[in-house]
Amino acid sequence: MHPHDMSSASPWRLAERAETMNPSAIREILKVTERPGILNFAGGLPSPETFPVEAMRAACATVLAEGSTIAKPALQYAASEGLAELRTWVAAEMAKQGAHVSPDQVLITTGSQQGLDLIAKVLLDKDSPLLVETPTYLGALQAFAPMQPTIDSVASDDEGVQPEALRAQLAASPAAGGQRPRFMYLLPNFQNPTGRTMPEARREAVLAVCREHGLPIVEDNPYGELWFDQPPPAPLLARWPEGVIYLGSFSKILAPGLRLGYVIAPPALFPKLLQAKQAADLHTPGFNQRVVVEVLKNNFLDRHVPTIRALYKSQRDAMLAALGKHMAGLDVQWTQPVGGMFVWVRLPEGVQASALLPQAVEAGMAFVPGAPFYAHAPDPRTLRLSFVTSTVAQIEQGMAALAKVVRAAAGGG
Amino acid sequence: MHPHDMSSASPWRLAERAETMNPSAIREILKVTERPGILNFAGGLPSPETFPVEAMRAACATVLAEGSTIAKPALQYAASEGLAELRTWVAAEMAKQGAHVSPDQVLITTGSQQGLDLIAKVLLDKDSPLLVETPTYLGALQAFAPMQPTIDSVASDDEGVQPEALRAQLAASPAAGGQRPRFMYLLPNFQNPTGRTMPEARREAVLAVCREHGLPIVEDNPYGELWFDQPPPAPLLARWPEGVIYLGSFSKILAPGLRLGYVIAPPALFPKLLQAKQAADLHTPGFNQRVVVEVLKNNFLDRHVPTIRALYKSQRDAMLAALGKHMAGLDVQWTQPVGGMFVWVRLPEGVQASALLPQAVEAGMAFVPGAPFYAHAPDPRTLRLSFVTSTVAQIEQGMAALAKVVRAAAGGG
Repeated sequence: MHPHDMSSASPWRLAERAETMNPSAIREILKVTERPGILNFAGGLPSPETFPVEAMRAACATVLAEGSTIAKPALQYAASEGLAELRTWVAAEMAKQGAHVSPDQVLITTGSQQGLDLIAKVLLDKDSPLLVETPTYLGALQAFAPMQPTIDSVASDDEGVQPEALRAQLAASPAAGGQRPRFMYLLPNFQNPTGRTMPEARREAVLAVCREHGLPIVEDNPYGELWFDQPPPAPLLARWPEGVIYLGSFSKILAPGLRLGYVIAPPALFPKLLQAKQAADLHTPGFNQRVVVEVLKNNFLDRHVPTIRALYKSQRDAMLAALGKHMAGLDVQWTQPVGGMFVWVRLPEGVQASALLPQAVEAGMAFVPGAPFYAHAPDPRTLRLSFVTSTVAQIEQGMAALAKVVRAAAGGG
Repeated sequence: MHPHDMSSASPWRLAERAETMNPSAIREILKVTERPGILNFAGGLPSPETFPVEAMRAACATVLAEGSTIAKPALQYAASEGLAELRTWVAAEMAKQGAHVSPDQVLITTGSQQGLDLIAKVLLDKDSPLLVETPTYLGALQAFAPMQPTIDSVASDDEGVQPEALRAQLAASPAAGGQRPRFMYLLPNFQNPTGRTMPEARREAVLAVCREHGLPIVEDNPYGELWFDQPPPAPLLARWPEGVIYLGSFSKILAPGLRLGYVIAPPALFPKLLQAKQAADLHTPGFNQRVVVEVLKNNFLDRHVPTIRALYKSQRDAMLAALGKHMAGLDVQWTQPVGGMFVWVRLPEGVQASALLPQAVEAGMAFVPGAPFYAHAPDPRTLRLSFVTSTVAQIEQGMAALAKVVRAAAGGG
């Protein structure tokens, strides 16, 4: 809504930034897919089968037990930084991945989405340049948008952003009076939406360009634990501690309904992020933090996360097999994710994903068109499939349905 | 920290707004008060005695029970608007107070502090004028600050903002090219920090000026249910539905550690607030919403809230009695709150609250100096006392200690 669209009788006047705020494109698309009985590959949700209900039940009972000394602290206001036990746990986990940070650098957030909001507030002025992958996580574009930055996409391939393209872009823009980008936003592991992962060599090559140009990085890693055969290469944070802000989440390894994530920031930035956090919601729910500290005891995740990996791997296998079988003979490409939740598909020339969606829904399956994930120049032939909330049989059936409508659209028959 | 203070080797550059972000003044002050054994009247926390631990335990057990059909939905991603049952409950509660709103106007937020952040994003541009009470809630000033508005204080007395002062201020400023304030932020009930309440006549008088000048209102009501003898007058929302955004909270009637609040907005503004909410943290923790829906069943609050009122009233009585007794003969004034958590004190001429604090701490008690609660021209003689986290005996002892240091500072002896 444009401010001038408000009734002249209305006393409200919107901020300029509110003009760019509109119900998410994806939200609107997903409404199309909400038909009973549809095979839904459009969502970005983890599988509810993986939610640790029993462990949560036990943890809540412990926190709230009669005589519990933590029941009332769990229900009281708490520190904006987050619970010390949880910050310490995060630092210890990061150390296992080669990133040595102090718990004092860990800010517990209301989901990692909030981390993106806080980073935008602290680092982005109006018209600040900012770099993202092609394509990138739609929610990050939404979180950055209210601060009105100028977003540029860096050319990317199956291994993430291309170092030479990045170098050329940095060399070209800030020469005379132009601003250096405030940061580059990257999802190195099993990226949403493409499922791709930055290999070791690509991480080093991209970092070399970033260091050379003093371009800091916001590294978002919600899916890193969901690897299928081997862990991904060490995080960027481990390689350039002073140049990387790192975002992590409990949404994919425990449950998103808790809204628990974290930001790890260089010591010089931490106080600003903390102040933004305090202004935004005072603190992340202390009850949820206490419950998760209980859940994490006795190395719970060491037993729990492998079950998620095994489930998602079987679903990934089913999807790749079904795509191979049903797309045979069609000019359709797809990624080969080695972890995470998503496969990214490119349709034959002349077939647009958004135009295909109603036909797919008619045929009983749904996907998300890829266009909203691009900051610029969307490739209209792309679409995202989630493999984690469907059974192997549903995946087989869904890919058959998708292939059928692609074949009809591509072959004209 | 000024951006130029960052080491020249640092790749980070801060947003302009981050320069105004600093650890809260209150936070720093409270550190002084964190000594073992101190009688602490400085906090803004509700009494943990009032937290419904047993009801929470039962609700968590129900939500997460074996075979529960809501366990997995409670742990999954959820709608940005909030849970339908909770939105409906809020609308029904508002109807009891004479404000008839649709559940579609209710946005569930991660505490009502988040409501302030979302309102700032949607309604405030850089340099947008904005009006607040004298003094006002510090957390609101912090939530609005990142959007860089120009904040003006309206002269206020024991009944809230003064209508004639408001009228004069509105008539003076926007005459030639000046902008109309985007809104006025008010806490009509048992205000933080003063404890004062806007009486019926004052509400009508202030609203008349607002309607006349097309000045909308953000009405913050975290304490409204905590009345001691009779409910406060009907909310401003009930009187001017299209001109008021209303903020409510579960923090003071259940527990703040859940971080559950809500915003009620006119239908034209709701989609913008919703989009800002989605970008900020996707949604308020669904688990917490489901648990609170369980807690609220069978009119739990009808039995629970009266126990909070009775406790706080006895503590308010004790504080007013102790102040009357120990401050006798001193030129000290204080408010007479009829609900809420706070008494506001004005020290004798020449005695500054911030200078007195170390002496008070030395004498075994702590308060918060009033200065940080003023947007402009703080009255250095003011301080805030919370009466809800101390026993009657502690209140008596604490006020005696305060009076002793005031007497020494005022009388020079």
